[in-house]
Amino acid sequence: MPFDAGLLSPVTAGHEAAVSDAAVLSALVAAERALIAAYAAVGAVPDDIRAEADALAATDVRALALAGVAGGNPVIPLAKELRRTAGERVRPWVHRGATSQDILDTALMTVAKGAAGHVVAALDAVAGSLEAFARTHRDLPAAARTLTQHAVPTTVGLRASTWLRAVRRARARLAAAEFPAQLGGAGGTLASFVEIVGAERAARLPAAFAAALGLDAPDGVWHVTRWPVTELADALVQAVDALGLIAADVATLSRTEIGELAEGTGGGSSAMPQKQNPARSVLIRSAAIRAPHLAATLHAAAALAVDERPDGAWHAEWPALRELLRTALGASAHAAVLAAGLRVDADAVARNLAATHGLIVAERLSVVLGPLIGAGGVADVVARAGAGGDLAALVHAAIAEAGASGVDVDALLEPASYTGLAGRLVDEVTADHPPLEEDR
Amino acid sequence: MPFDAGLLSPVTAGHEAAVSDAAVLSALVAAERALIAAYAAVGAVPDDIRAEADALAATDVRALALAGVAGGNPVIPLAKELRRTAGERVRPWVHRGATSQDILDTALMTVAKGAAGHVVAALDAVAGSLEAFARTHRDLPAAARTLTQHAVPTTVGLRASTWLRAVRRARARLAAAEFPAQLGGAGGTLASFVEIVGAERAARLPAAFAAALGLDAPDGVWHVTRWPVTELADALVQAVDALGLIAADVATLSRTEIGELAEGTGGGSSAMPQKQNPARSVLIRSAAIRAPHLAATLHAAAALAVDERPDGAWHAEWPALRELLRTALGASAHAAVLAAGLRVDADAVARNLAATHGLIVAERLSVVLGPLIGAGGVADVVARAGAGGDLAALVHAAIAEAGASGVDVDALLEPASYTGLAGRLVDEVTADHPPLEEDR
Amino acid sequence: MPFDAGLLSPVTAGHEAAVSDAAVLSALVAAERALIAAYAAVGAVPDDIRAEADALAATDVRALALAGVAGGNPVIPLAKELRRTAGERVRPWVHRGATSQDILDTALMTVAKGAAGHVVAALDAVAGSLEAFARTHRDLPAAARTLTQHAVPTTVGLRASTWLRAVRRARARLAAAEFPAQLGGAGGTLASFVEIVGAERAARLPAAFAAALGLDAPDGVWHVTRWPVTELADALVQAVDALGLIAADVATLSRTEIGELAEGTGGGSSAMPQKQNPARSVLIRSAAIRAPHLAATLHAAAALAVDERPDGAWHAEWPALRELLRTALGASAHAAVLAAGLRVDADAVARNLAATHGLIVAERLSVVLGPLIGAGGVADVVARAGAGGDLAALVHAAIAEAGASGVDVDALLEPASYTGLAGRLVDEVTADHPPLEEDR
Amino acid sequence: MPFDAGLLSPVTAGHEAAVSDAAVLSALVAAERALIAAYAAVGAVPDDIRAEADALAATDVRALALAGVAGGNPVIPLAKELRRTAGERVRPWVHRGATSQDILDTALMTVAKGAAGHVVAALDAVAGSLEAFARTHRDLPAAARTLTQHAVPTTVGLRASTWLRAVRRARARLAAAEFPAQLGGAGGTLASFVEIVGAERAARLPAAFAAALGLDAPDGVWHVTRWPVTELADALVQAVDALGLIAADVATLSRTEIGELAEGTGGGSSAMPQKQNPARSVLIRSAAIRAPHLAATLHAAAALAVDERPDGAWHAEWPALRELLRTALGASAHAAVLAAGLRVDADAVARNLAATHGLIVAERLSVVLGPLIGAGGVADVVARAGAGGDLAALVHAAIAEAGASGVDVDALLEPASYTGLAGRLVDEVTADHPPLEEDR
Repeated sequence: MPFDAGLLSPVTAGHEAAVSDAAVLSALVAAERALIAAYAAVGAVPDDIRAEADALAATDVRALALAGVAGGNPVIPLAKELRRTAGERVRPWVHRGATSQDILDTALMTVAKGAAGHVVAALDAVAGSLEAFARTHRDLPAAARTLTQHAVPTTVGLRASTWLRAVRRARARLAAAEFPAQLGGAGGTLASFVEIVGAERAARLPAAFAAALGLDAPDGVWHVTRWPVTELADALVQAVDALGLIAADVATLSRTEIGELAEGTGGGSSAMPQKQNPARSVLIRSAAIRAPHLAATLHAAAALAVDERPDGAWHAEWPALRELLRTALGASAHAAVLAAGLRVDADAVARNLAATHGLIVAERLSVVLGPLIGAGGVADVVARAGAGGDLAALVHAAIAEAGASGVDVDALLEPASYTGLAGRLVDEVTADHPPLEEDR
Repeated sequence: MPFDAGLLSPVTAGHEAAVSDAAVLSALVAAERALIAAYAAVGAVPDDIRAEADALAATDVRALALAGVAGGNPVIPLAKELRRTAGERVRPWVHRGATSQDILDTALMTVAKGAAGHVVAALDAVAGSLEAFARTHRDLPAAARTLTQHAVPTTVGLRASTWLRAVRRARARLAAAEFPAQLGGAGGTLASFVEIVGAERAARLPAAFAAALGLDAPDGVWHVTRWPVTELADALVQAVDALGLIAADVATLSRTEIGELAEGTGGGSSAMPQKQNPARSVLIRSAAIRAPHLAATLHAAAALAVDERPDGAWHAEWPALRELLRTALGASAHAAVLAAGLRVDADAVARNLAATHGLIVAERLSVVLGPLIGAGGVADVVARAGAGGDLAALVHAAIAEAGASGVDVDALLEPASYTGLAGRLVDEVTADHPPLEEDR
Repeated sequence: MPFDAGLLSPVTAGHEAAVSDAAVLSALVAAERALIAAYAAVGAVPDDIRAEADALAATDVRALALAGVAGGNPVIPLAKELRRTAGERVRPWVHRGATSQDILDTALMTVAKGAAGHVVAALDAVAGSLEAFARTHRDLPAAARTLTQHAVPTTVGLRASTWLRAVRRARARLAAAEFPAQLGGAGGTLASFVEIVGAERAARLPAAFAAALGLDAPDGVWHVTRWPVTELADALVQAVDALGLIAADVATLSRTEIGELAEGTGGGSSAMPQKQNPARSVLIRSAAIRAPHLAATLHAAAALAVDERPDGAWHAEWPALRELLRTALGASAHAAVLAAGLRVDADAVARNLAATHGLIVAERLSVVLGPLIGAGGVADVVARAGAGGDLAALVHAAIAEAGASGVDVDALLEPASYTGLAGRLVDEVTADHPPLEEDR
Repeated sequence: MPFDAGLLSPVTAGHEAAVSDAAVLSALVAAERALIAAYAAVGAVPDDIRAEADALAATDVRALALAGVAGGNPVIPLAKELRRTAGERVRPWVHRGATSQDILDTALMTVAKGAAGHVVAALDAVAGSLEAFARTHRDLPAAARTLTQHAVPTTVGLRASTWLRAVRRARARLAAAEFPAQLGGAGGTLASFVEIVGAERAARLPAAFAAALGLDAPDGVWHVTRWPVTELADALVQAVDALGLIAADVATLSRTEIGELAEGTGGGSSAMPQKQNPARSVLIRSAAIRAPHLAATLHAAAALAVDERPDGAWHAEWPALRELLRTALGASAHAAVLAAGLRVDADAVARNLAATHGLIVAERLSVVLGPLIGAGGVADVVARAGAGGDLAALVHAAIAEAGASGVDVDALLEPASYTGLAGRLVDEVTADHPPLEEDR
């Protein structure tokens, strides 16, 4: 019976294959196979042993999980099981010279690399959709809000391009993450390997091991220097942070009273069929709340490492890293759908922009009218408009009273003409990313 | 295929039944049944509908998990499934008037109550073992260590009684946790229930609902006031904190060079058979590193609640609460075994106590000899002893030089006589907890 | 030059006196004085030594802070300084038998107790204001929102009473926090005290010490069992959680498009004078984001304690506890002002309630009309209304078509009559808390 | 009166100048000056206005802190104060077009860049000392420990080189951190600047602003995309993680029973003069426990950003970032002293290496003797040796019994010859980093 199929984590349900126990077990077995391949690569065993190595297999996740409790990790019973079922020739080389942490760390990097690849792909999909969205709505003026209040105009396109920049930054960082294999032996000296194959071959083993798995060659043993884990965690949480901003904006802007945005397919409510919940935004937000704590767990584990293998900190990493990967997988997959289907209600955007009866350009009045009618004059106009007065009339009157002239009041009060560099900023973000076919 | 059977979380492997998806689904169905029972209890439906209600069932966890993604939670598809398979008579009453959160919050409280009960029982087992252990080693002098260095003598029994007090405190707090049912309807007003059964009966529904599940009657709707979750989380992490101290001490005191304590059954190492790893301590420590972050996630969710149902914070609770429960279950179960099997190497304790060549009582020399030979004199004796001199001879000489007398130097230097109130403190902790039969 | 006067923490600026370095130093000196008073109380020194003890003083915070680095805490240089300036008679009794942790833990409890008292008082003020607010707006119907969308009606009063319950719960918990003194000597055995005053008097010292400071008598030495710190932290973060909900609701409901609530005195903007920022809500929300992490730090420290004094975990507590206290002080003080000045725009409340053209009662239609016109019929009515149709007309037509009768459609569609038990729930929360004079 | 001079944070006391309120205020004023310089740089004002701009000054930290509460940040009162005291000519340009967040974010980046520079320098000092240390002790065999137990031999030099690699990695990451200025105006569109100086000049303003402060030109407005803050936080916590490993090892290896390492100047204890506390390790460990939570706070803030300026998340950053910088400053400064003075007790190292009576090479026996006497034979020898038997004699007997020969038993049992690639790994880490003069 599955412990966790996503019933309590809808953000991740359906997105967990890459990090499931089955995936981990597969990666563990792959690491054990790769060790034999590495022995072959450095010339310690005949190359044709690989076929027999590739036949190594284990599938009983539950039995290994339970057997792993006694020794603190599943590798000890796994190695035993693999030896039990291995061919004669390969048997002596199973797990030979390795320590549990070599295999487990390597397997986690394999799993992490696969999962991170999925997240990168999902972020690419998000970015592609946002880019098209930003271009489409490049010049649609909308209220910019600070501290929840309308501040000045912006554009729907600029907001989306802001999301896009954050997604791209996170994507680049995640794509640059390193996934080194681990091979150090019990104490990190590779002494067992030296004993088995001599120093020269032993020195080449880690890179050969990594190559057999498509991982990065380690720049050293990292049993207790856990930056491969924390740097990955940092990149993952940065990705979720970036998606969190999108989700927060979509959730906010799809509020009943605001209604500027809507997810393509809202979450329904059986009892209240009129509701269109921003369901994916809600799920992404739940991920955004959780992810920082998962990454912090990994930093805590890194910071509490000790000796040549830590007395708890290492074990704390595994569930936290897996859950962080899973959360990023789910959040990015939901975000890809969200971004692809995001809809704008231009009427609502315009209605909201006008909600302050023109005062959305109050800052501009300060800049332009200040020199003409004084700061006090501007404040007076704004106060009267805020109390219900007609802004255009008030501005006209104030200008006249001050004896000023040459002000195009209609243009001055037009929010669409007070969006600064918004269009240019959108162009900058999309320029070096030419539209895909379907975006045109 | 299970996502998570414990392969990456040996601290929890085997301890997850109480919080598994199956347990959650069972609790969700139980909540839907209880709602009908509550309608019966307030007289809204004939009492004999309960039999039909009790036949409601759903088992396809995976399908519900996936179906739950669209609506953001599994209750919507569950209610649909239950209605589909319900008897004619009960069908209209399935989920009637309730909101998803009513059912999910209530089910989580049911699951949490069950899991917390297991944790309390495990803490009781820990406490029972520690109490016997403390009594047994009540008067065994040992080095007290501060900032990693030997400070003064203490006793093995006092250390264990310190652990015990922390476990008892946490146990009491967890046992006092409240597990209220939730029943408020879509907006927390119970309006749907009023519409269905009238105000008087509606007002009695929440307590009836809670009673049908053995939960606490809520003092109000808590859709967005999440103290039932955070107070439980606080108690759980306090329990793990208390176990973390034990694990840290056992891990430290079973270091190769210290060797005062050993777990009953050490974690083996295939390659290094001489090793006796403090495997349970290591696993408990991994839980101790993780638990604070899980509890913090729940507080963050509570602090970010908004509206009548939050837009992400509620969803963030579920996996975090479940994992915290699971972690506490595993850590306490391991601790129970650890405490039951904990062994003391009295020779090592004595050897370590003597490691500073008598200077473990340096503080006492300050107190007793200070008035006789001055603070400078004491410092001189200590410095010479620290450099290898014989402490007894140095003390005799210093006393003689100062013309003092009446000091029983042997008694003065005896660590066992400088344990203060240790024995009494042990007695205090164990006094009102009479020994169980097997402890005598 | 102050390191931190609040420039980067406006939520706490002006609220830090209770936890400043000066307050801590004062509490440290008070603890040293109280130790001497305790010696007098148990009859170890003449009672009239207290006057000389009360003259002990130290004020150079900065020098002690810097001197404290070498030994890891400020108590060592403080004791030295106090002895240097103490009267002849009291000098030998300064810090006698105590360990640094005794004094520092005790001083932190003194500071914490004072600060917690201020927080409790502020929570009382918040509760008082909310109670009046809830009564005033007991029957003002408003939209309840779930997942950001209008769901069903509620009342402004019920929402406030929900806040109130959370504040009261947190207040009770904080008021029940224990603040034990600490007195254990170097290894927690009280051996030094036994040596100095004998076992009987030593056994009475901790309670006497606590009494001299108005703290709780410890139930044991808690050098490494840190529940006094974490239980307080839990209560503080629960208080901030409760305030966070209020702040989130106020921030949301004062959005430009929603405008139902306004802080009494909004945060201004020089450039955009029309803005009325919910400045206090924003500051409280910043506290709500931070507090869980501060509390988690304290749990991590508790869970990582080891030996008879931890090698880092104890030191990690101090700044985290202080900042958590400070954050709670600031957040609660702001909340008190916010709650006292909170204003409702009843027009906006009504306008928003009508924003879905009557569909705010869609759930009710399901309950009432479902039996008459079928679920499909209700869905059809809702869909047409959502598309712009007149809800009342649609309902009338559907009823007529179904040949039903006896439905008071106007009453059915009136949101104010679909608020369930809202009024009663408000009364429950306020009933046993009779209005203060100024509330009538 | 200072709120916080370090009395409760000895790890940071004396290291806070770079991040104090005075430093922040100075950076705020510098940002306001730089804005005017930027206007000059793009040709909007005559270049000679800079002298007047450079005269802008404000020093009353406390007044600004308190005044900043109302508006939520100190920039509003600061701009007012600067205008009040500014020269006639510069006055209209003070804060012109900017929003508070532009100035505050920019000032924080200035402060952060300065502080990060100090941390990088301290990490360089740590690295330099560790490199010399690793070379000096390149071939000193020592026990490697896993899960607290002796596992196999390593070398003191390899352990130090492991620390070194982690420090270098963190150093590189921190040195690569970007510190962009912020300039977007109220809504992130730069509309105010366009109004004031036209689009072309406005587009050049952000880079000119950054250049005037020595900051990086922003690649866009980052009011709500907070990766500049979180990436820095990630790098800072990675640095503290790396130092945490060193501190954990030093604290552990300086335990009374282990005694392999000692800080150059131990923390003393007045009552127990024999103690040499690893005081700096303890303080660094306290930082390692706290830092992950501070970084997590910043990620939480980033993930909860919304609108064009967040309603609390932005404010939550300031104290958390400052405290994280401060913690990294303190921890790295302590680590520099620790690393420079770290001492090895070679006798203790050798004594510990021999503590398992030769079984530290048990793994090697498996590898070498396994093929000769069988796994069972090796296990038997190890078991007997573990029970007190003479390992050499047991090995000789087992070989003889198996009829094997050609084994150099003395060499086999020599720990120093079972350190694998330790020397080579040390060389790799130090090779491309030639010793500084003082290291020779």
